[in-house]
Amino acid sequence: MENPFDDTYYMKKALLEAEDAFEKGEIPVGAIVVINDRIIARAHNLTELLNDVTAHAEMQAITAAANFLGGKYLTNCTLYVTLEPCQMCAGALYWSQISKIVYGARDKERGCIALETKLHPKTKMVGGVLAEESSALLKRFFIERRNLN
Amino acid sequence: MENPFDDTYYMKKALLEAEDAFEKGEIPVGAIVVINDRIIARAHNLTELLNDVTAHAEMQAITAAANFLGGKYLTNCTLYVTLEPCQMCAGALYWSQISKIVYGARDKERGCIALETKLHPKTKMVGGVLAEESSALLKRFFIERRNLN
Repeated sequence: MENPFDDTYYMKKALLEAEDAFEKGEIPVGAIVVINDRIIARAHNLTELLNDVTAHAEMQAITAAANFLGGKYLTNCTLYVTLEPCQMCAGALYWSQISKIVYGARDKERGCIALETKLHPKTKMVGGVLAEESSALLKRFFIERRNLN
Repeated sequence: MENPFDDTYYMKKALLEAEDAFEKGEIPVGAIVVINDRIIARAHNLTELLNDVTAHAEMQAITAAANFLGGKYLTNCTLYVTLEPCQMCAGALYWSQISKIVYGARDKERGCIALETKLHPKTKMVGGVLAEESSALLKRFFIERRNLN
């Protein structure tokens, strides 16, 4: 029987967000925030629609989760995001004191691992959950929508 | 005669924003964005009021400037900010491709220099403009408002 509350389950929800971004012509990255097995924020990249480089999926998810919780710290929360966070998003997650970050695909060029962005000591990060699906969606976007192949 | 368009002039405007933050009980950091000697965005830290760790002065200034320009890249713009940007804000400035960052006080613990956040190759950064005034305002805040001394 499938455990409805494992990392793969939640990453599938983040992937649905990424697919929404794809349909809007946005680089397809999705994110959700979970606390106590409850999804409290869903977001996807909207940098094109909003004309705003800060509108990454994670940034919106952090803001939405804090709004839901009524406080700015995301203690006991987990962020699921289909692509490894960038410096900006990892920097925001540092301030949020989030407990856990789970990402899908690696971003070896602009991701927080390669660029050594500092995470909060309270934060654990794991990657590779539905990495192939997350990566395939991004590749399809750049081939179909940006003619990069 | 005072040159109305030098870095000190604009940093004074950013300091006025920081003072507004102070009055609201926010950590007093202010920022403005300038293009062709015109101020196109003013912002100050609102993390407490908005319950949102992403509401740093710089983040709001980036969003406001992009909104003014009608495009997400801040080419030919200069950001004046009273405190050296953190990882999140420097990461956002990376994406914005901003031409120049001028900061006031250094943040030796959590600033982008110590944490080696990557800036865009198009971006120049200079610091120390009205550093003492910027720093004094922050110190006064933590003594008066947070009883830290």
